Amino acid sequence: MFYHVKELQFNARVSAPDPKFAALLLEQFGGGNGELKAAMQYFVQAFAARKPYPEKYDLLMDIATEEFSHLEIVGATITMLLDGINGELKDAAEANPITSLNGNGAKESLIHEALTSPQFLVLSGGGPALTNSQGVPWSGAYVNANGDLTVDLRSDIAAESRAKIVYEYLLKFTDDPYVHETLRFLMTREIAHFQQFSAALDTIQPNFPPGVLQGDPRFTHAYFNMSNGADARGPWNEGQGPWGPGEEWEYIKEPYQHVVDTLGEIEHEPVGAKQTESEVKKLDKQLSKQRSSEVKSATKGKGSQWSSYPQEELPSPMGIEQK
Amino acid sequence: MFYHVKELQFNARVSAPDPKFAALLLEQFGGGNGELKAAMQYFVQAFAARKPYPEKYDLLMDIATEEFSHLEIVGATITMLLDGINGELKDAAEANPITSLNGNGAKESLIHEALTSPQFLVLSGGGPALTNSQGVPWSGAYVNANGDLTVDLRSDIAAESRAKIVYEYLLKFTDDPYVHETLRFLMTREIAHFQQFSAALDTIQPNFPPGVLQGDPRFTHAYFNMSNGADARGPWNEGQGPWGPGEEWEYIKEPYQHVVDTLGEIEHEPVGAKQTESEVKKLDKQLSKQRSSEVKSATKGKGSQWSSYPQEELPSPMGIEQK
Amino acid sequence: MFYHVKELQFNARVSAPDPKFAALLLEQFGGGNGELKAAMQYFVQAFAARKPYPEKYDLLMDIATEEFSHLEIVGATITMLLDGINGELKDAAEANPITSLNGNGAKESLIHEALTSPQFLVLSGGGPALTNSQGVPWSGAYVNANGDLTVDLRSDIAAESRAKIVYEYLLKFTDDPYVHETLRFLMTREIAHFQQFSAALDTIQPNFPPGVLQGDPRFTHAYFNMSNGADARGPWNEGQGPWGPGEEWEYIKEPYQHVVDTLGEIEHEPVGAKQTESEVKKLDKQLSKQRSSEVKSATKGKGSQWSSYPQEELPSPMGIEQK
Amino acid sequence: MFYHVKELQFNARVSAPDPKFAALLLEQFGGGNGELKAAMQYFVQAFAARKPYPEKYDLLMDIATEEFSHLEIVGATITMLLDGINGELKDAAEANPITSLNGNGAKESLIHEALTSPQFLVLSGGGPALTNSQGVPWSGAYVNANGDLTVDLRSDIAAESRAKIVYEYLLKFTDDPYVHETLRFLMTREIAHFQQFSAALDTIQPNFPPGVLQGDPRFTHAYFNMSNGADARGPWNEGQGPWGPGEEWEYIKEPYQHVVDTLGEIEHEPVGAKQTESEVKKLDKQLSKQRSSEVKSATKGKGSQWSSYPQEELPSPMGIEQK
Amino acid sequence: MFYHVKELQFNARVSAPDPKFAALLLEQFGGGNGELKAAMQYFVQAFAARKPYPEKYDLLMDIATEEFSHLEIVGATITMLLDGINGELKDAAEANPITSLNGNGAKESLIHEALTSPQFLVLSGGGPALTNSQGVPWSGAYVNANGDLTVDLRSDIAAESRAKIVYEYLLKFTDDPYVHETLRFLMTREIAHFQQFSAALDTIQPNFPPGVLQGDPRFTHAYFNMSNGADARGPWNEGQGPWGPGEEWEYIKEPYQHVVDTLGEIEHEPVGAKQTESEVKKLDKQLSKQRSSEVKSATKGKGSQWSSYPQEELPSPMGIEQK
Amino acid sequence: MFYHVKELQFNARVSAPDPKFAALLLEQFGGGNGELKAAMQYFVQAFAARKPYPEKYDLLMDIATEEFSHLEIVGATITMLLDGINGELKDAAEANPITSLNGNGAKESLIHEALTSPQFLVLSGGGPALTNSQGVPWSGAYVNANGDLTVDLRSDIAAESRAKIVYEYLLKFTDDPYVHETLRFLMTREIAHFQQFSAALDTIQPNFPPGVLQGDPRFTHAYFNMSNGADARGPWNEGQGPWGPGEEWEYIKEPYQHVVDTLGEIEHEPVGAKQTESEVKKLDKQLSKQRSSEVKSATKGKGSQWSSYPQEELPSPMGIEQK
Repeated sequence: MFYHVKELQFNARVSAPDPKFAALLLEQFGGGNGELKAAMQYFVQAFAARKPYPEKYDLLMDIATEEFSHLEIVGATITMLLDGINGELKDAAEANPITSLNGNGAKESLIHEALTSPQFLVLSGGGPALTNSQGVPWSGAYVNANGDLTVDLRSDIAAESRAKIVYEYLLKFTDDPYVHETLRFLMTREIAHFQQFSAALDTIQPNFPPGVLQGDPRFTHAYFNMSNGADARGPWNEGQGPWGPGEEWEYIKEPYQHVVDTLGEIEHEPVGAKQTESEVKKLDKQLSKQRSSEVKSATKGKGSQWSSYPQEELPSPMGIEQK
Repeated sequence: MFYHVKELQFNARVSAPDPKFAALLLEQFGGGNGELKAAMQYFVQAFAARKPYPEKYDLLMDIATEEFSHLEIVGATITMLLDGINGELKDAAEANPITSLNGNGAKESLIHEALTSPQFLVLSGGGPALTNSQGVPWSGAYVNANGDLTVDLRSDIAAESRAKIVYEYLLKFTDDPYVHETLRFLMTREIAHFQQFSAALDTIQPNFPPGVLQGDPRFTHAYFNMSNGADARGPWNEGQGPWGPGEEWEYIKEPYQHVVDTLGEIEHEPVGAKQTESEVKKLDKQLSKQRSSEVKSATKGKGSQWSSYPQEELPSPMGIEQK
Repeated sequence: MFYHVKELQFNARVSAPDPKFAALLLEQFGGGNGELKAAMQYFVQAFAARKPYPEKYDLLMDIATEEFSHLEIVGATITMLLDGINGELKDAAEANPITSLNGNGAKESLIHEALTSPQFLVLSGGGPALTNSQGVPWSGAYVNANGDLTVDLRSDIAAESRAKIVYEYLLKFTDDPYVHETLRFLMTREIAHFQQFSAALDTIQPNFPPGVLQGDPRFTHAYFNMSNGADARGPWNEGQGPWGPGEEWEYIKEPYQHVVDTLGEIEHEPVGAKQTESEVKKLDKQLSKQRSSEVKSATKGKGSQWSSYPQEELPSPMGIEQK
Repeated sequence: MFYHVKELQFNARVSAPDPKFAALLLEQFGGGNGELKAAMQYFVQAFAARKPYPEKYDLLMDIATEEFSHLEIVGATITMLLDGINGELKDAAEANPITSLNGNGAKESLIHEALTSPQFLVLSGGGPALTNSQGVPWSGAYVNANGDLTVDLRSDIAAESRAKIVYEYLLKFTDDPYVHETLRFLMTREIAHFQQFSAALDTIQPNFPPGVLQGDPRFTHAYFNMSNGADARGPWNEGQGPWGPGEEWEYIKEPYQHVVDTLGEIEHEPVGAKQTESEVKKLDKQLSKQRSSEVKSATKGKGSQWSSYPQEELPSPMGIEQK
Repeated sequence: MFYHVKELQFNARVSAPDPKFAALLLEQFGGGNGELKAAMQYFVQAFAARKPYPEKYDLLMDIATEEFSHLEIVGATITMLLDGINGELKDAAEANPITSLNGNGAKESLIHEALTSPQFLVLSGGGPALTNSQGVPWSGAYVNANGDLTVDLRSDIAAESRAKIVYEYLLKFTDDPYVHETLRFLMTREIAHFQQFSAALDTIQPNFPPGVLQGDPRFTHAYFNMSNGADARGPWNEGQGPWGPGEEWEYIKEPYQHVVDTLGEIEHEPVGAKQTESEVKKLDKQLSKQRSSEVKSATKGKGSQWSSYPQEELPSPMGIEQK
Repeated sequence: MFYHVKELQFNARVSAPDPKFAALLLEQFGGGNGELKAAMQYFVQAFAARKPYPEKYDLLMDIATEEFSHLEIVGATITMLLDGINGELKDAAEANPITSLNGNGAKESLIHEALTSPQFLVLSGGGPALTNSQGVPWSGAYVNANGDLTVDLRSDIAAESRAKIVYEYLLKFTDDPYVHETLRFLMTREIAHFQQFSAALDTIQPNFPPGVLQGDPRFTHAYFNMSNGADARGPWNEGQGPWGPGEEWEYIKEPYQHVVDTLGEIEHEPVGAKQTESEVKKLDKQLSKQRSSEVKSATKGKGSQWSSYPQEELPSPMGIEQK
């Protein structure tokens, strides 16, 4: 259950209305890397984590709830930046232009303004809209939740990275010290969450490769040089790179020839990897057993119940009889 | 700021997994009339209401927060209905089929099942997805917020009506008494919210027509009979209908002839309406003045601040100096 | 079957081209509250209504057809506001800028204009586009049709309210008296439709709650105060409010405590409501029987036929033998 | 203005309900190649054509109106195929399953059915939905209208081709002789429209290349062989092909070498084409002049008016004084 | 398999950054008629063509690959037009405005710029975005592939026509001679592809009507005059038009009366067409047999294999034993 | 420029058609974590990287090109799994059912099949479609490209993680050993790419926090415990966690009280962090200078040219004079 506290988590203030910056700031309200995306991503991921990994559930819900609180901060800031528009739109009987937008500019100029943020003037009536800075509605497709924490937490680290850079860019477009302060708080929290998710991922071992199955050792270490000209070499395609001791990249310089020679990679022998196919199979079984038992171990009762009242322990849901 | 309480608002339980009903139930998780739509609609509307109508802000945020809590109930129920899928997907090294889905059915049958709810098996890994029952991602376009409470509250009454009927339909597709109980709670709350929004709309007077401007009395009372054959007559196109005393519908039986005769309605005289054009203009001015002053009256200070700490009064935001 | 009359329902005129306002006006052509949305919503709803409620079918199709006619008026107005652009784009061999857009302004300025309404210049070639004012394509998701008139008509009342306020806002952004006149006609018609739908809803009794089922009396009258701070009280959460005599709101001031105390609302007793559970069940059965028989009563023949030729009675479709 | 005739253009009938085929048939109701797409495409194109090419406007509006009439036929057929569902959903108090869907099958089987067409059961309540056969909402992005008839008519010929093949495919999935008859009518009309658009395109000369500008003769006749292995040769890359006498394809067998040799095609000399650059420029100017004057020639008066009352001549809009 | 060559197919250059034109040019990067749409359309169509029509497969893949190469040219041009933005965004510690955008203009003016192309400043950080010129993300719904070459090639001819006109329009909005040169190359290639697809369609006989089935001769030649007023007549609705000798259009001047008289077209007799129903059936069977055998004839072995290594013949896939 | 090699990178084979698995496999063709998403993401990111980081450009383009090659493998596999459908659809004159779908099952059963993958039967005609497994069209919104490699590479690592888990899930739903072999190759390549992107990220120092700016030390180390009940503690909210020596998490157990006490975090003092505000500012300036000069350092000439011919060095674009 959620509860709403009327105080914002951060004391959002603005010096003066600025409808143009409000339009840019929509990117963090209803955009693909914005606060709603973050909130919904962690919230949706949390359901599958609740039973097997209640500690991660608690983490995901704490951060999801903070992101909802940030969404509120962004919406509040946009609303204050739009101050005056709604009041003038309500002055509907008057033919005179909306002065809050551009002082006493001509209507010509006014409409020009309107075109750069039409959502505020003809649609939302001076409040935020659930779109990005270009008017594209927020989409559930932004949310990544795949039922595996070694995957989900990496999606979250990437999501925090993108949210952080968008705040960094936005900071270049406002001079308002109050707004600057708010944006910097929000940007910083993305860094904190990045670290929280990294630490959580680190507690899951092994976490590479993501998911359960190992890769086929014939193909894990191969780099296909799919382009001509001068080729860049570095730890991503030569030497040991990120691999363990005794392992290294296989650099396939001429992919076409290689593909023909190996009959479409069927006859490609492992190069660079140390694991054998049978070791891989063994690891696959081992991790399958571990992870599936982590997920399955639970509920002894008949049916499921999500919470107890009060819910004073982390684990949940439990069998219905246990309530 | 939001706060998360681990207990669900309603004690959601399920008797046994049922992935098929889980798929249908997604309609209320990520569908166009579902809980997220409701939560986000009232949340987004609330921003513009906060300063001029703090009482309505409180109402909108209370119901928005309850809808977020319902979204959690729906997600928890879906997760319990999918119990077992994630565990078996994690058994990745095993070639044997996912028995939780269909007992010991053949793989053929298994894949068939998968096709009716592929999102749970190949994408979300056994958790909810932010889509409707057919896999269409939730969209910000579902949210209606137009910066005018006489409009927004009507959008909300309609939204509650649609959410209610979807729960009513869903109830036909589950026999699980626990799920039935949960859905009935959620359906009932839509009725409660319907009444809350109706009561709130009623406190705003006048609230018809929605917005500020009156209609042109030449066209408010006209019914254009745009089709041939037997015509239905009723209070929507004959007699007084919903109009005040002394007013009545004008029934235009032959729209083509009428349009030609009036040079495209330019020469259409008012029929049925009592208001004159000058009364309309007067009302327009009066209501414009009232509504725009309601919205504009506020903030004396320099700049705006959304909350005080603690926020112990309804009105907000206030001028920055007042903190 | 539809038929097209070359005369517009309203004599749309413009004083001079104005591509900027044309871009704003797209909101009513391809936007979520625009004319196409209205037309398609009533048209789609009409199918399910045809057999059980032929009078409402007639109403829905009359208004749908009028909305298509309004879509045409909006498209015609946009086209006239864009007058000149297509001709100059056709002057493709010339390097000189498109003067109709900005007199003799420099190309720099021209491109700037283009950026505020690029659809007209690089995509539609100076005609309307099926998008809203920000270029987002029209979506079938805007259409609400749920197979129940007590729901659908409420969706329609809300849709008309939104369309009305959008016209009200648009009127602030044009000085052209002809365009003003057209927009006012269109805005007024939304008011007329609002009243027509209200009157139609009123003829269906009972129409509250929407759909067939009553709410659970334990939860219909409860208001959950989901937020802290100063609480607003009013007819939406105290006293009788919109309820019948002897009924009143139950105000749950501390939802968390209440939820724990009632084991997740399971042990919540009805407060404020007068209906008992058994009365509710009786009403449910009664209305179920009435409504389902209204819908089922019909077609005696084998198979169905939509129209007779000529179709001189309201009821339809009929059994095939009846043709 | 549109007018609705209660008789369908084609006498749509069904032998018996068939919700599964109804779901497939949605492809022609709200799908990307369906009737609404066709109707809206021609309707939107018509606006830009009205003044310069009133004959083509008449053609586009006639076919658009017929496609709206076909949309109605498809919607009516879907509704009759769903007969019974709405009635049983209204039987909301009953726990018994929806027998119209699957005779007396168990609820298990019922829900399975529901999953293959959930829109009818939990969303639309047994009426059509504005989506394709997989539940994806109709999109304005399906509509192609680019303000040039040599382009638009080709978009229309392609659209009719796609609509035709979809009907051809659908015919494989129903045995109902009445539905078969209706689909064959609709499929045939797409062929008729294909021919109507072809004939109209043929009256515009020159119509190749589409638009106004000629191609650069260095690049019009070149075929880049962008793939290895055995190469197919045919009139699309060797000999005269579709070109005029004395012209032929230039086959660039080794694009990489060619690109390096010509410094990125900068030094590519024309091969195969007869036109010189100066002839091209001359043609460009000539056609620019012709087409832009066709479009610009018009309206002498001040302002524009879309229709006269009655509108008895094809040309329109005219100057406002001419009314 | 694809291979990347670092040299662009055309030597794309720009004289100076121009973020505004970059925003317009996005229409050809991520827009509905842009290079990605073309590339993906031909690529997707190619799969179904590979076995039955290997020559057409080769053509489709050659052009698809060229379109990917054009997408790269467009992206490179956009990137060079945005030169400087990314560098200044990286200067994140500085409060000073982004001078590359507007010289030394005030921040006020800077933000205004930002609003016309916010994607480059707050989202993509100065690189291209996969959206159209208005920020709408590219959609798979743009791609038409229907498994029938007489349909698909017509979709392709139309797609090339639209891409051509969009380049034609774009050429009006840049003065940069280098950019002009690049756009003219790209525009010209659309003409070349148009001719290649036309030639390919011509090698398939018969190719009218698209697909396999003939139309019903009662309805192929009918023109329904669905609108009032002065009617345009021309080869699309009178005389022989595009039909064969001895055939002609049937002009239905009064559709309503015709529909009633023929009981909804059921009793409509063929007018204008020469084919009889039995000839149609014979043709249907003949072409069905031919086309289905073309598609089915193949693979003798067990299972399928897409390529041989090396793949030196056109036909593919083959039975697995044949490798 | 791209070049197409007719041999697939991997020798894709199938034992027998399986339309159901083909439908699931669409998730990797046109789904949000599929091959097209990967290909387009790296391709779009590459443009901004080309000038400042040519080595990373080479890496991004190599992997993008390999992902296009994987998209082709997935499309080829889907096509072989659908073998037979197109041939039977072409048998359009026959009333007999499509036997390849379900042996000799009744048409009833056939249509049921059709409903689980309607796209293949009524839309794509037996070829792949650019949608996910539920028919939702691919969207440009899936692509994350933010113009900063410390962000983009993290988006790529997350994208590879999601693609890997989806292949892992898909492997549970096919018994075909050939398809299994192909999917395992594709899954393994995602692991290889994961390592390549990790190694590349590691060569950029510092890469934390992502982007240029440091966080505000008052807020980087704070964990807000936004939920009630038993709280999970771990390295993500207690002790040093992922921070450097001498640093640690600040655990805010009662966020509401904390927010009120600090006046909305304004008076929150740094806890746990070692960096001072002035060190942060210094680091911000330093990294700003470094990164912006990396990006800006380049092109000396007038204008830009993307490639030289031949392009034999990594750096590009260069000034036009250098060609």
